[in-house]
Amino acid sequence: MSDDEIKMVVAVVRPDKLGDVKQALAEAGAPSLTVTNVSGRGSQPAKTGQWRGEEYVVDLHQKVKIECVVSEIPAQDVVDAIADAAQTGEPGDGKIFVLPVEDAVQVRTGESGPEAV
Amino acid sequence: MSDDEIKMVVAVVRPDKLGDVKQALAEAGAPSLTVTNVSGRGSQPAKTGQWRGEEYVVDLHQKVKIECVVSEIPAQDVVDAIADAAQTGEPGDGKIFVLPVEDAVQVRTGESGPEAV
Amino acid sequence: MSDDEIKMVVAVVRPDKLGDVKQALAEAGAPSLTVTNVSGRGSQPAKTGQWRGEEYVVDLHQKVKIECVVSEIPAQDVVDAIADAAQTGEPGDGKIFVLPVEDAVQVRTGESGPEAV
Ligand SMILES: Nc1ncnc2c1ncn2[C@@H]1O[C@H](COP(=O)(O)OP(=O)(O)OP(=O)(O)O)[C@@H](O)[C@H]1O
Ligand SMILES: Nc1ncnc2c1ncn2[C@@H]1O[C@H](COP(=O)(O)OP(=O)(O)OP(=O)(O)O)[C@@H](O)[C@H]1O
Ligand SMILES: Nc1ncnc2c1ncn2[C@@H]1O[C@H](COP(=O)(O)OP(=O)(O)OP(=O)(O)O)[C@@H](O)[C@H]1O
Ligand SMILES: [Mg+2]
Ligand SMILES: [Mg+2]
Ligand SMILES: [Mg+2]
Repeated sequence: MSDDEIKMVVAVVRPDKLGDVKQALAEAGAPSLTVTNVSGRGSQPAKTGQWRGEEYVVDLHQKVKIECVVSEIPAQDVVDAIADAAQTGEPGDGKIFVLPVEDAVQVRTGESGPEAV
Repeated sequence: MSDDEIKMVVAVVRPDKLGDVKQALAEAGAPSLTVTNVSGRGSQPAKTGQWRGEEYVVDLHQKVKIECVVSEIPAQDVVDAIADAAQTGEPGDGKIFVLPVEDAVQVRTGESGPEAV
Repeated sequence: MSDDEIKMVVAVVRPDKLGDVKQALAEAGAPSLTVTNVSGRGSQPAKTGQWRGEEYVVDLHQKVKIECVVSEIPAQDVVDAIADAAQTGEPGDGKIFVLPVEDAVQVRTGESGPEAV
């Protein structure tokens, strides 16, 4: 038990790491998650390229956002599982953020609080 | 008035419940919302099926995420309205989370704080 | 330095303002961001129209959501940069919300805390 605290772990990672992250989360005991297709950029300047003689700029890269709300499992375990599964060591591996959550409700049962996560 | 507090209510529900949720929110006095197409899984193990003799696994289900930031209307009223409108009683009905928000700005006017929500 | 605090600035703006917002954020020293295609409605009642003699209701408008997590740069600077770049003065310009973030991890390095943002 993590003292009734609820956290939302938000990770933005490479799309081809989604499968590994899902498996790592299930193994960490936190299988529930929500996935969104996003695009983004990090701290590197935009890359320029050439296509049929035209110069173009790639400044947003396809990523997936994974949101995983937990209460029984410590957020740190979820963060570690995601970071480990998503890492390649190359620029663009992504970021993980931990946000506080004040309440949760399971729609099917109407139950609320940490037990509802 | 809920004491100047701003909350973000984040709900992940069945796509075919979006219409009912929008109507319920308007009736609760909280019509403003942002909708994202997402996919996700809850606590049930993945389902396996057969297609043309091949086994496949359905592990992510299409859902919609609804974000509704409120200040005058209590977050609890918004949560109750969504939960009531989105419930079928079957597994997969979704979850609702309440997050703290520290500030809000209305872009058109530049106004900030709870009044800007 | 803003005292080790990490904030997530969430903005929902007109899609055709994304370019201006990206440039404004880069100029403000906060180039990193995540973009999601969303739809939504604000406080105005839905608009009705006519198409081939049929009445229809437009109640969700296409928007983009921009998430920008910062620690060194004050969240207020990011909010101001986005609001300034996204404003037209017409209804529908969007909203900006500031959420607290408790921790951040850079996946490539495993580094955590405000330095990892
Ligand atoms: N501060 C941030 N705010 C919001 N989204 C971010 C932030 N930093 C990174 N992201 C998201 O994560 C994705 C990957 O970022 P990336 O890994 O390139 O970060 P970085 O800081 O440049 O680190 P690296 O040097 O390892 O590339 C971005 O495309 C963006 O979607
Ligand atoms: N802890 C969570 N974190 C993030 N997203 C979640 C979480 N739990 C559920 N979701 C989202 O809500 C959707 C529906 O979840 P679901 O209703 O199946 O939850 P559940 O815990 O399995 O409850 P039930 O037993 O009623 O099915 C998931 O597909 C996912 O997108
Ligand atoms: N309270 C809110 N919660 C969640 N999303 C919101 C909220 N208010 C606005 N949005 C998002 O921002 C988009 C634009 O909103 P909009 O600018 O129309 O807000 P408004 O309050 O009606 O202000 P205005 O009078 O300037 O139009 C909406 O389509 C929705 O996606
Ligand atoms: Mg990078
Ligand atoms: Mg379920
Ligand atoms: Mg409006």
